[in-house]
Amino acid sequence: MRAQLISRADLDFLLHDWLRVVELCDRERYAEHDRDTIDAVVDLAAQVATEHFAPHRKVSDTREPEFDGERVTLPDEVRAALKVLGDTGIVGAGLDERVGGMQLPAVVVQACFVWLHAGNVATAAYPMLTVAAANLLLTHGSSEQVQTWVRPMVEGRYFGTMCLSEPQAGSSLADVTTRAEPRDDGTHRITGTKMWISGGEHELGENIVHLVLAKIPGGPAGVKGISLFVVPRVLESGERNDIALAGLNHKMGYRGTVNTVLNFGEGRATPGGEAGAVGYLVGEPHTGLAQMFHMMNEARVGVGAGATALGYAGYLLALDHARTRTQGRPAGAKDPASPQVPIVAHTDVRRMLLASKSYVEGALALNLYCGRLLDEERTAGTDEERRRAHLLLEVLTPVAKSWPSQWCLHANDLAIQIHGGYGYTRDHDVEQLYRDNRLNPIHEGTHGIQGLDLLGRKVVMQGGAGLTLLRETIGQTVERGRAVGGELAAHADAVAAAVDRVVEVTGIVHSQDDPALAVAHSSVYLEAVGHVVLAWIWLEQALAAEGRDGDLYEGKRAAARYFVRHELPRTGPQLDLLASLDRTTLDVRDAWL
Amino acid sequence: MRAQLISRADLDFLLHDWLRVVELCDRERYAEHDRDTIDAVVDLAAQVATEHFAPHRKVSDTREPEFDGERVTLPDEVRAALKVLGDTGIVGAGLDERVGGMQLPAVVVQACFVWLHAGNVATAAYPMLTVAAANLLLTHGSSEQVQTWVRPMVEGRYFGTMCLSEPQAGSSLADVTTRAEPRDDGTHRITGTKMWISGGEHELGENIVHLVLAKIPGGPAGVKGISLFVVPRVLESGERNDIALAGLNHKMGYRGTVNTVLNFGEGRATPGGEAGAVGYLVGEPHTGLAQMFHMMNEARVGVGAGATALGYAGYLLALDHARTRTQGRPAGAKDPASPQVPIVAHTDVRRMLLASKSYVEGALALNLYCGRLLDEERTAGTDEERRRAHLLLEVLTPVAKSWPSQWCLHANDLAIQIHGGYGYTRDHDVEQLYRDNRLNPIHEGTHGIQGLDLLGRKVVMQGGAGLTLLRETIGQTVERGRAVGGELAAHADAVAAAVDRVVEVTGIVHSQDDPALAVAHSSVYLEAVGHVVLAWIWLEQALAAEGRDGDLYEGKRAAARYFVRHELPRTGPQLDLLASLDRTTLDVRDAWL
Repeated sequence: MRAQLISRADLDFLLHDWLRVVELCDRERYAEHDRDTIDAVVDLAAQVATEHFAPHRKVSDTREPEFDGERVTLPDEVRAALKVLGDTGIVGAGLDERVGGMQLPAVVVQACFVWLHAGNVATAAYPMLTVAAANLLLTHGSSEQVQTWVRPMVEGRYFGTMCLSEPQAGSSLADVTTRAEPRDDGTHRITGTKMWISGGEHELGENIVHLVLAKIPGGPAGVKGISLFVVPRVLESGERNDIALAGLNHKMGYRGTVNTVLNFGEGRATPGGEAGAVGYLVGEPHTGLAQMFHMMNEARVGVGAGATALGYAGYLLALDHARTRTQGRPAGAKDPASPQVPIVAHTDVRRMLLASKSYVEGALALNLYCGRLLDEERTAGTDEERRRAHLLLEVLTPVAKSWPSQWCLHANDLAIQIHGGYGYTRDHDVEQLYRDNRLNPIHEGTHGIQGLDLLGRKVVMQGGAGLTLLRETIGQTVERGRAVGGELAAHADAVAAAVDRVVEVTGIVHSQDDPALAVAHSSVYLEAVGHVVLAWIWLEQALAAEGRDGDLYEGKRAAARYFVRHELPRTGPQLDLLASLDRTTLDVRDAWL
Repeated sequence: MRAQLISRADLDFLLHDWLRVVELCDRERYAEHDRDTIDAVVDLAAQVATEHFAPHRKVSDTREPEFDGERVTLPDEVRAALKVLGDTGIVGAGLDERVGGMQLPAVVVQACFVWLHAGNVATAAYPMLTVAAANLLLTHGSSEQVQTWVRPMVEGRYFGTMCLSEPQAGSSLADVTTRAEPRDDGTHRITGTKMWISGGEHELGENIVHLVLAKIPGGPAGVKGISLFVVPRVLESGERNDIALAGLNHKMGYRGTVNTVLNFGEGRATPGGEAGAVGYLVGEPHTGLAQMFHMMNEARVGVGAGATALGYAGYLLALDHARTRTQGRPAGAKDPASPQVPIVAHTDVRRMLLASKSYVEGALALNLYCGRLLDEERTAGTDEERRRAHLLLEVLTPVAKSWPSQWCLHANDLAIQIHGGYGYTRDHDVEQLYRDNRLNPIHEGTHGIQGLDLLGRKVVMQGGAGLTLLRETIGQTVERGRAVGGELAAHADAVAAAVDRVVEVTGIVHSQDDPALAVAHSSVYLEAVGHVVLAWIWLEQALAAEGRDGDLYEGKRAAARYFVRHELPRTGPQLDLLASLDRTTLDVRDAWL
């Protein structure tokens, strides 16, 4: 038996039974589509992931990108897989028809990318970054920029990157020092060093479109002086731009995604003899951070999707192992002459599997829900509906990024544990999935940054409207759960109590005067809100399974029950800690550590 | 600044201020020693770890053991480091003078090995396994076996292994099928395959002494029919024994410790032409498991020590990084023209550091406490004192193994997070420490096995005497805390309430009739008891620091405060879950997963 990458039955349940994505086809943007076209593209992504991405997962790990001083080489399998993907059109599945895309709902595109991530997260990173760059240019670029750079991306010929971090400016983008000097021809010359650039240099396509944050001299200090530029590896003239690869980073996992240090405007002879790489300003000067955040929000949900996929693939491998590996006997049946049983018969193994199921299926549901919100934002009938969808997505984004990065990584940890010694060897994929997933709490804004975003910004902006909306939205689910009665009503009561407590604690934290104390426990807050959100997502799934018979639905009920009884109560002490305004971590001095 | 491997100041605080190990020198066994000899051997271990073990930590990871079909080769640095260690006599630091050992207190020996583990856990595994084997033979072997096999171990010429697992018998030792056929000369012939054998084949010394579990035909079924044998790689005659290396396992981490599959009695021509490897029975037939458990208990505390050391080394690296890496500005000081601050200035970073400190210093304290109990068991003045020390050590062993394996691994996770992207690269040691530490929840009895041991055996044996003793012991600390008053009294109240709840919940779980339900949540129970035990250990440390000024003592107070306020409350929902006798994980069916 070979494990699937993602349960297709679960995915169909989420897309169709729960989120009713086919209803989106009534809207103008998606009117060309129906259940058949949606299912066909998901099938296609599943096939590409299974037949072309997963087979070289191990190769991606053992044969890292190499730089010989001239060029970066990747295993041939990466290029071959991306060629197949390019031919399917999935890279442009969510993009506008006007640029050659399929214009499918975002929620469907996310389902496709979850398959690709589960197959090979390192290879999937190249198209994922490209789609994010294309989306940004579609939103903020000129029509000429769209024609020049986005079309070839949709066709799979060009790849994209995001160039934010610098050696002295990782999380602190205010300290970006890369310069962009204006030239008379309307272009800029870019000089500076960018670090941690995934996909920064390779030979996979005809060009790489770097989206670079830089400062135009004379602009405002800090983040308000950041502008965004297209800086292509190869100029339209065919000449190489002045971008030099300074080195590769060698990572614990995610090794197949080349990670680079890039020097812009240092060394190479430049067109016209001027110093610096040629860059094209996107949108207005000094609006770069806002534009990049548009991309980063999608990228953050995308990181959550990658974390989910890695956890999900590991869970299914662990389930397969637990059903086939025999070891020991159940409690109360200790006769050594009796045959050994599959380890899934042991309660503690089932506990680990059910916990993992609740993490990975819950994370997938949250991820798709965010995609559904994006579709709502794009296509809702009224401005008010669009505003609400946007606001809810804003509040949920830090959770959608961080929660799967924490808990689906934990599922990978449990997958190793279920495999025992085997899971710790490189003969079994679960160890690689664990190493791969460890990146996700770091990139696109660390856990700590997500906590500050949620507690310091998202729940206070617009007078707290985001949190109010989240509570209302959850409240509607709670009412439906109470109306059903029985176990679902009990779940609903637990979720309602938890969300009420979140609102209360948020008020306590922000009603005192010390800004440092207000955000001192932002990571704990993030974790607590994450678990409350996921309990709500599980209540939603249990409602969608209500009244239906079969293992799939029993599984949903069991996982919801597990989550409400075993996981949600973790938030009690966390929220109590927040409410206590504890100063322990704030007051501890460096010298005491 | 280069980080230490372990804080010597902390270690001195624990050994001398808290555990008062010098008082052990009043006892006959340790009468040759005093503070000077104790400190000298710890200094020596620190020096060997720092100068000879740590420098090849990365080499151990990148140049794995290789098998060319003839022999296993390791990097030269391993042999060189073990030669230095062998010359110091530290391998025999805890062993009897009659076999050439130093006869130092066990608690001091553990401190020495924590240093070695922190320097290079993979290299330290060879002497650690050797000491465990030597201890077992000293306890259960004949005087001839001690002379033949133990003396050369103490001299650093022979190495030891534990051969328990087989392909079909990992956690389930009842299913061991390796056979031991008696021969007229009093020896046995061993045939079977052993798996996951660390240090199973190498050229580091003159011989490898395998301690092998096997069944003598005609004996009882299951674990009651297991006997223990010395099976040397090289016989006293100088001939190679019939032990063939079937293959190496390639691991996520801990790579420098060669991990083998060994075939006993298959292939090689045997002395006298008989089938099977020559083995020498240790002690009585069919008592092998009990003997091995004697070794395993020490090995389990030793695994906890290794996990502690890896977490500790990672914490000190993270602390060093946090003090030197500048990034961003404190909350409320957002002027981008102001200089960036060291990241230790950010509350969330301090939170991660303080949490890590509470894990690694807490784990080290628990580990040393267990060593102190072993010394008490060996040298107490009365049988009753010895009995109590033994019983308390029995109860604490699953916690001493599992808690550091979980929480010091978490400290390694936080060390990566504090390093940000850098921590995810192989340029920084924290990623290796994380991979190395991931083994510890698996070997020497998985987390699940430790949970079953604690809830299913240790707290119920002798009518629950072990749990009663633990409560009494903690109660004495609580009384001392209450007598001090103030914050320590508050900590004491919290610890007392938690331990009372543990006792209450243990009664609830065991007072119902279903044995499967009784142990269904044994892993959760293990975690909850672990946190309660560590809260007590932190109260002990805070008491030892009471009334003293200085950063070390302020740090102890801050970590104790952190643990009681941020960590101990996690146990509330865990114990409530146990008390509810929840059946979710017990009732979930395979088909629902």
